[in-house]
Amino acid sequence: MQNTETRYFTFAHPPDELTLESGEKLGPITLAYETYGELNRQKSNAVLVLHALSGDAHAAGFHKGEATAGWWDNLIGPGKGLDTDKYFVICSNVIGGCKGSTGPSSINPVTGQPYGLDFPIITICDMVNAQKRLIDHLEIEKLLTVIGGSMGGMEALQWMVAYPDRIRSAIPIATTMKHTPQQIAFNEVGRQAIMADPNWKKGRYYGSAKPAKGLAVARMIGHITYMSDVSMAEKFGRRFRADREPYKFGAEFEVEGYLRYRGDNFVKRFDANSYLYITKAIDYFNILNGKRLADIFKGLKAKVLVIAFKSDWLYPAYQSQEIVKACKLAGIDTTYCEINSTYGHDAFLLEIEEEAHLIKHFLNTVSNGNRNGA
Amino acid sequence: MQNTETRYFTFAHPPDELTLESGEKLGPITLAYETYGELNRQKSNAVLVLHALSGDAHAAGFHKGEATAGWWDNLIGPGKGLDTDKYFVICSNVIGGCKGSTGPSSINPVTGQPYGLDFPIITICDMVNAQKRLIDHLEIEKLLTVIGGSMGGMEALQWMVAYPDRIRSAIPIATTMKHTPQQIAFNEVGRQAIMADPNWKKGRYYGSAKPAKGLAVARMIGHITYMSDVSMAEKFGRRFRADREPYKFGAEFEVEGYLRYRGDNFVKRFDANSYLYITKAIDYFNILNGKRLADIFKGLKAKVLVIAFKSDWLYPAYQSQEIVKACKLAGIDTTYCEINSTYGHDAFLLEIEEEAHLIKHFLNTVSNGNRNGA
Repeated sequence: MQNTETRYFTFAHPPDELTLESGEKLGPITLAYETYGELNRQKSNAVLVLHALSGDAHAAGFHKGEATAGWWDNLIGPGKGLDTDKYFVICSNVIGGCKGSTGPSSINPVTGQPYGLDFPIITICDMVNAQKRLIDHLEIEKLLTVIGGSMGGMEALQWMVAYPDRIRSAIPIATTMKHTPQQIAFNEVGRQAIMADPNWKKGRYYGSAKPAKGLAVARMIGHITYMSDVSMAEKFGRRFRADREPYKFGAEFEVEGYLRYRGDNFVKRFDANSYLYITKAIDYFNILNGKRLADIFKGLKAKVLVIAFKSDWLYPAYQSQEIVKACKLAGIDTTYCEINSTYGHDAFLLEIEEEAHLIKHFLNTVSNGNRNGA
Repeated sequence: MQNTETRYFTFAHPPDELTLESGEKLGPITLAYETYGELNRQKSNAVLVLHALSGDAHAAGFHKGEATAGWWDNLIGPGKGLDTDKYFVICSNVIGGCKGSTGPSSINPVTGQPYGLDFPIITICDMVNAQKRLIDHLEIEKLLTVIGGSMGGMEALQWMVAYPDRIRSAIPIATTMKHTPQQIAFNEVGRQAIMADPNWKKGRYYGSAKPAKGLAVARMIGHITYMSDVSMAEKFGRRFRADREPYKFGAEFEVEGYLRYRGDNFVKRFDANSYLYITKAIDYFNILNGKRLADIFKGLKAKVLVIAFKSDWLYPAYQSQEIVKACKLAGIDTTYCEINSTYGHDAFLLEIEEEAHLIKHFLNTVSNGNRNGA
């Protein structure tokens, strides 16, 4: 793919601010987004890609002068799973984030200072409501599909619930309809690590030293949950680092060096407060919320492709199977695929060949079908 | 059981110091230990109980004036799984610990100050070598069994390898022959959390504020791995705490409150440096270490009972099955039982009824058998 660049869409002034699920109002809101491919004349080929916890709008291609491609570049591009010769692909950074969209590190217009913890708590519902404004702005009446893994999959489910008339299909990947206590627990420990860092200063660290150590620990915890027992054994085994000092507390095992590297690297590119807000949004996520399973997707006309990965223990396959069950109970045309991978949760970013094949075939069916009006 | 109390055994002066696996020497060494029941005249009824990461010598009964029983009290006592009417039960705190045995918070005789990081790195092998001195001191030629879960199970395996002639049987529970990279990773993140705490001061915090927040985070990570997805769902679900403040970063979900409580509580009773040293010992553990599976237990005449728990994902059943395989390859009389529990790794402390039944029956067989000389 050619060079890609991030654009910004800002909506401000009532009624264009956003009333959040908490009842609070947030505005002005900027969404960072990128698009790849061309929107066709009928505006029927738009695909909304939804990123995970630490993702951003830069899903594909290269930014000018940068050597690293977007986070789902192996899936998005000419001839790829999300074929940009056929589809107009949109990806926007979520609110609460730190990659160009309004979040806790943005300037609070009331104080002229970064929001910090004055930023309101946001939910997956709020993220999707903001995305919907972007889709309105792009004048797309109906998205061909909404697709994402992990938190991105939760957003896809939220689109299915909140805007059923605005999507022709959805592809929730490696995700869940509600965060379980174990999933909450992993996020909570990450938050505790950040808040235990004296540099965090109740979120008022902008302009001074960052809570780097706390955020690094949070990320390390995350990384363990993204891999599997088997993938770690294959990648690291019990190998020692060449530069290890035995019988000290440095990084001796390769896996230790890897975690430290991933932790330190993350600190350079992510804001600790955004980590707090986004994990909290994920923990709140529960589209069941007292409803009967059969009622959640009632009335939805979209086709659904649910993808899970066998070794994913963070969002185990049984949670995807519950999504399928809820879809089937609502009479939705649903396809389920459990990909046989050892990569754990990370598989949604790595098992591209099989994933691309499934997605390509599914989108062909959706594009060619006229059941929901092409 | 009647009141129990901790006793202390100290060995000092060369040659009674301990040469560690690292080559360093450690001494004097004190071991805190407790005993329950009576040693018979033939000294053939001694059982050595081996504790896990945060355990101590106080395995059973009540200390005078205390309301909380020892950590395995439901298994040890008159008529219980480890029947103190029949057996003489010994439990000693490991070296490196902080419950009366010599560890990093002990006074370094060279400096007159607590060791801190001057304490040498210790291994499971070193812990067992120290225990063996205690068994010598108690003049027990042959233990009826060595039994423990988690790290305690590693010690049992180490006894099988290092002192095959000193045991008539072994009961490794919920354990592994080598720590895998995922298991190392969880420990490493806990250590990182401690070392990220500015109060840790490279281990020199004795007499000043403790690295309480870091240690609490480490313990919270541990607790997630001790439970299972299912046991957390049963215990907490997505229930909110009665006193929650919605849309803040306090403990809102019950699981969050539980983790914070367990973290804060742990800080009161455990030393952060001991957490570093003991987790490191666990990570180093690898009795395979290049050997052929068939050679590890070669020559061992003891009977072995291996117990695993279905929902234990920290030390999954396949690791116990590898122990069984190694035993069988060595021609050892081995029994394997996988208990159908939802408690996760904690099951070895909770699924007492089935565990007690297995252990009782197994020890009867060992006591009555004369193959290894009663």
